[in-house]
Amino acid sequence: MTARYFVGLDVGGTAMKAGVVDDAGVPLSSVSLPTEASRGQERGLDRMCETIREAVHAAKRRLDDIDAIGVATPGLMDIAAGLIIDPPNLRPWKNVPVRRHVSAVFGKPTAFQNDANAAALGEFWAGAGKGVSSLVFFTLGTGVGGGIVLDGKVLEGRNSHGGELGHMKIEMTQPRRCGCGRLGCLEAYASATAVVKRTYEALNQPESGSSLHGVLKTTGELTARDVFTAWMGGDSLASQIVEDTAIYLAIGAMNVMHTIDPDMIVFGGGMTAAGEPFLHRIRHHVNELAFSIPAERTSVRFAQLGTDAGFIGAAACGRQLVS
Amino acid sequence: MTARYFVGLDVGGTAMKAGVVDDAGVPLSSVSLPTEASRGQERGLDRMCETIREAVHAAKRRLDDIDAIGVATPGLMDIAAGLIIDPPNLRPWKNVPVRRHVSAVFGKPTAFQNDANAAALGEFWAGAGKGVSSLVFFTLGTGVGGGIVLDGKVLEGRNSHGGELGHMKIEMTQPRRCGCGRLGCLEAYASATAVVKRTYEALNQPESGSSLHGVLKTTGELTARDVFTAWMGGDSLASQIVEDTAIYLAIGAMNVMHTIDPDMIVFGGGMTAAGEPFLHRIRHHVNELAFSIPAERTSVRFAQLGTDAGFIGAAACGRQLVS
Repeated sequence: MTARYFVGLDVGGTAMKAGVVDDAGVPLSSVSLPTEASRGQERGLDRMCETIREAVHAAKRRLDDIDAIGVATPGLMDIAAGLIIDPPNLRPWKNVPVRRHVSAVFGKPTAFQNDANAAALGEFWAGAGKGVSSLVFFTLGTGVGGGIVLDGKVLEGRNSHGGELGHMKIEMTQPRRCGCGRLGCLEAYASATAVVKRTYEALNQPESGSSLHGVLKTTGELTARDVFTAWMGGDSLASQIVEDTAIYLAIGAMNVMHTIDPDMIVFGGGMTAAGEPFLHRIRHHVNELAFSIPAERTSVRFAQLGTDAGFIGAAACGRQLVS
Repeated sequence: MTARYFVGLDVGGTAMKAGVVDDAGVPLSSVSLPTEASRGQERGLDRMCETIREAVHAAKRRLDDIDAIGVATPGLMDIAAGLIIDPPNLRPWKNVPVRRHVSAVFGKPTAFQNDANAAALGEFWAGAGKGVSSLVFFTLGTGVGGGIVLDGKVLEGRNSHGGELGHMKIEMTQPRRCGCGRLGCLEAYASATAVVKRTYEALNQPESGSSLHGVLKTTGELTARDVFTAWMGGDSLASQIVEDTAIYLAIGAMNVMHTIDPDMIVFGGGMTAAGEPFLHRIRHHVNELAFSIPAERTSVRFAQLGTDAGFIGAAACGRQLVS
């Protein structure tokens, strides 16, 4: 049997990343080009094709070697129709027929998927979830994205809203306002952006002692990384923020354990750089919060593929078309 | 092709109900016997077999006519193993090998399922969900049970905790204590029991004017039905309780729309006797709370099979073994 290769493309608000991936989920190349959404969607579609070509070139393969392509994009979409609808991160794009275009240009089976769903499938196929049969993925960045993989298939949902895990409501009495406009969404508590926001609130309390005051003075602004670094250094204000974050993520995990009940829950995104000590706090709260059987048995882990998860997962979507 | 028949058995804390169901999901019989769990699990297993036999007899069929059997039970279980583990409603039963026993007694393919999961499949097959491809079912009684059906299959979960929708956490700041011991579960807000509890709390407020004071004086205790009746009669305290209940159920529906994103959400249980006006309030809040696309497109309905959903769904589980 000839070796099979797939191209995955992950379109983000700032850059698009593509790579050739082999049949075992190993990337042979990885290239990145600026998205430049503001230049319009026609150029955007051209840029997608250009990034795919560069990925093939960088892998020292020819387009003839490629069996299928997968494209992952953010925001509001119609997955079944292969259409970007109205993505906040890709203004002014609207109703972009991504799948049809890419498929027509390359003449190959082309899959289309939500970016967080693709990343979930990437981790399932070639990352933290290797060998499990179901997985729920939370990605923690500006927002909280999510993807659900059941028996190896992405749960896309009837209206392409499957796995929008950041928009479970977890608070009614004093709900925080989410970036989506709703109140009390998990994302408003547990995203990297929310960590920073909660930190500013805490620092603005009278007599709040924290090493982060100094960091803020020096750098002019704080990042989630600063908060986790201060936590590692024993800062007590940062410790409270991180502990609360672990609780929020444990609530997200628990809600998923009591509805989907997957083999594994995977957290990805920059915050997971905090490593084992942070994962340990999340697991601690899962054990406190969830029913004992799923709490004991569900594997809770950090992602392994980093920012490659999206294009590897997109390639996996392409691969599923020809498997 | 010969007509095919299935027996479904739904084991409850008080009674067990069984019926013969044809290949189109139509029940030919329905019988009910007391569970009498306190007499022990050996007797319980005998009673299950007795109920199945009576259902066959009542349908004027012979056991030879039955293609498969399905048994649904409440509480902690291992669905894959066909085992009741430790069900609070069936004390003192423990580790009861239901599927193996029933299968051995009748020598027929026998399925085992959680009762709310079975009811979800019943509604999917022969009730409110006829013709859809995915459905999420909430059953509102003493607790809030749930079941998820995707592409015609029950989402059992890795640890038999799939669809435990009553135990999503929806409140952190002032969480109510749930019957399961946890804090802030949907069940602690939206079950029939919670409706009554919230009503008592409201009536205990100073100067609470309500027709329910009179009902309470006459009958000695209130039921959810009393609250809904008072609401229909224009009682303002009852209106607040019912409105809050609609909000809680809409939050449950929304969380499911943003994770599972099914074709349809179905509410079942006694409270749905309140009919269209109550459903209308739930839908109103779903529209307020959820993302616009799933809010517009997801069908939100009341169940159609009443207390037959469990045994019809159990029969459907048996049918899936031989389909």
